[in-house]
Amino acid sequence: MPDFHIRPLNQELAAAIQHKIDGKTKPVGALGQLEVLAHQVALIQQTLTSQLRQPHVLVFAADHGIAAEGVSKYPQEVTYQMVLNFLSGGAAINVFCRQQGMALKVVDAGVKGSFTDFPAVINQKIAEGTRNFLHEPAMSVAQCEQALAAGAKLAREVAATGCNVLGFGEMGIANTSAATLLMHRFTGRPLTDCLGRGTGLDDEQLSHKATILTAAAQQHAALTKPLEVLAAFGGFEIVQMVGAMLGAAEQGLVLLIDGFIATAALLAATALHPAVREYCVFCHQSEETGHQLMLAHLHAQPLLNLNLRLGEGTGCALAYPLLVAAVNFLNEMASFESAGVSQSTEPMPVTA
Amino acid sequence: MPDFHIRPLNQELAAAIQHKIDGKTKPVGALGQLEVLAHQVALIQQTLTSQLRQPHVLVFAADHGIAAEGVSKYPQEVTYQMVLNFLSGGAAINVFCRQQGMALKVVDAGVKGSFTDFPAVINQKIAEGTRNFLHEPAMSVAQCEQALAAGAKLAREVAATGCNVLGFGEMGIANTSAATLLMHRFTGRPLTDCLGRGTGLDDEQLSHKATILTAAAQQHAALTKPLEVLAAFGGFEIVQMVGAMLGAAEQGLVLLIDGFIATAALLAATALHPAVREYCVFCHQSEETGHQLMLAHLHAQPLLNLNLRLGEGTGCALAYPLLVAAVNFLNEMASFESAGVSQSTEPMPVTA
Repeated sequence: MPDFHIRPLNQELAAAIQHKIDGKTKPVGALGQLEVLAHQVALIQQTLTSQLRQPHVLVFAADHGIAAEGVSKYPQEVTYQMVLNFLSGGAAINVFCRQQGMALKVVDAGVKGSFTDFPAVINQKIAEGTRNFLHEPAMSVAQCEQALAAGAKLAREVAATGCNVLGFGEMGIANTSAATLLMHRFTGRPLTDCLGRGTGLDDEQLSHKATILTAAAQQHAALTKPLEVLAAFGGFEIVQMVGAMLGAAEQGLVLLIDGFIATAALLAATALHPAVREYCVFCHQSEETGHQLMLAHLHAQPLLNLNLRLGEGTGCALAYPLLVAAVNFLNEMASFESAGVSQSTEPMPVTA
Repeated sequence: MPDFHIRPLNQELAAAIQHKIDGKTKPVGALGQLEVLAHQVALIQQTLTSQLRQPHVLVFAADHGIAAEGVSKYPQEVTYQMVLNFLSGGAAINVFCRQQGMALKVVDAGVKGSFTDFPAVINQKIAEGTRNFLHEPAMSVAQCEQALAAGAKLAREVAATGCNVLGFGEMGIANTSAATLLMHRFTGRPLTDCLGRGTGLDDEQLSHKATILTAAAQQHAALTKPLEVLAAFGGFEIVQMVGAMLGAAEQGLVLLIDGFIATAALLAATALHPAVREYCVFCHQSEETGHQLMLAHLHAQPLLNLNLRLGEGTGCALAYPLLVAAVNFLNEMASFESAGVSQSTEPMPVTA
């Protein structure tokens, strides 16, 4: 198991940060969740003048053995095809990263097929897809450790270039199935609470997915160690995200958490190192059933709720301007004192 | 009453727009509310290739006679002081407009005090504040018509410079009281459903505000014409917003609707010209009690829900990147065909 040293946030600056927020020319609390966000980022960065530098989104892609059971509406080759779409700039995450000025890196964590002709793909392939977890663990514990280390190494490399805010996206046909089982095991919720329509299954297809995943959960019910559970169900993209989240938190970055799959990865990450939670900004609540319960389990308040269910890190890129706004108001707004604006008073005594 | 010609949206392009959205490389519907937004903007602009040009936020400021009844936590001079804060760039709306590249224009619709030394303020002052609507109509019907015309003229001028997306903000101590009564009258909801804490009243202060507004509602209960109701309770900033909204919709602009006060203005605008509703993007759900019910009355789904209660048009500026994202995905994302990505299939038949 790779070693991580993630510090719980030092709260010494908390009162000074809140004082600065409350002195801005607005009623106390009037910027709502943006104030909470500004406070969190200032604590993560241990400063009253936060800065966001070189924001990145890492998109991890991999294939899943469970796809053979017909749990997705899309054929498995779509994972490979979508990686090519990321490279040519045509996917939603490309559009939104360009808009926000976020750098996008695409990682082959375990896609079926070769990208040797496409050097822009970061090659961290563990294998050409996982095994079918209906019958056997998706990967060995050794592969799981290898994937964690690869994800963490990439996060550290990106941090070393000056980036201090990092979003996590994914692509992998059938990966809502993997995430559903990780949620089931890491939250303790019944499988039915964790199960959803993914890319858009109808009732019959959903029922089939439920049958498959119930059998898979039983197959691996005896496993209890977090790493074993992660290896049993995780995709290589999910495990590399776990490693990247832990590596990024260790480096003191702000972590942007996307939807159902990314939050499942975070559940595994918090099972390994609970302090990682304090570095996370929850970008949106997905339409995928179960994501709301995941967020509740993490006591997380998402920034957006737009019925998105796309993945790729799109929620991170769409929510990023709100993070910028939170940092900007803390740095740029005038205070009551500096602007010569009167503070609140008690209402004048008047008889109606 | 100024004359407005607002066209209901021509739906001829609707099927072609939806076809373009559904052909993008994502599961059908996976961009959720952004897809609805992309569709609406395309219909407003009557094109498959929408563009957002020169976004503006207009902030209308004015004072309210009802402030004399102690219905706000802040003294009345804060309206004037905050206009100066807008000019010097220190308010929240300045910060967020700078971030989004939106132009900000500040309008004196009826503030107590002179801005002759500050030529950057657009002078559309109707009077130095309204009268106290606890005892008499806030303004005459003639002043109300004058304010509508002034707002509309400004919107048309901004549109003539090439702007096609316009947000509406406001500043006016005690204007939640005005908006509460407009909501009460234009939605037909009981006053208690419309009443909230504004900038942060405590229980006793809220009870006092309820007493005052109940008496004010009774005072003008006999009025039934929309223009008379608007004149009885409206602030000059609210009425100029109504005029600007109608003028902007007439010009075919996309209208960005902010929080409680701006939505109250829109309620009045829709009472005068229902078709204005079709041009509106609802930027956020305010924490002010009543805003959720206003949105429900308008069958509106807000983009953000961040417990904001600041006004100034801040919700417009914070939501604007989502509008940009909606337009961008429609223009820039690859289609399944162009990217060579396989479409969805039925899951493979497999027995569990």
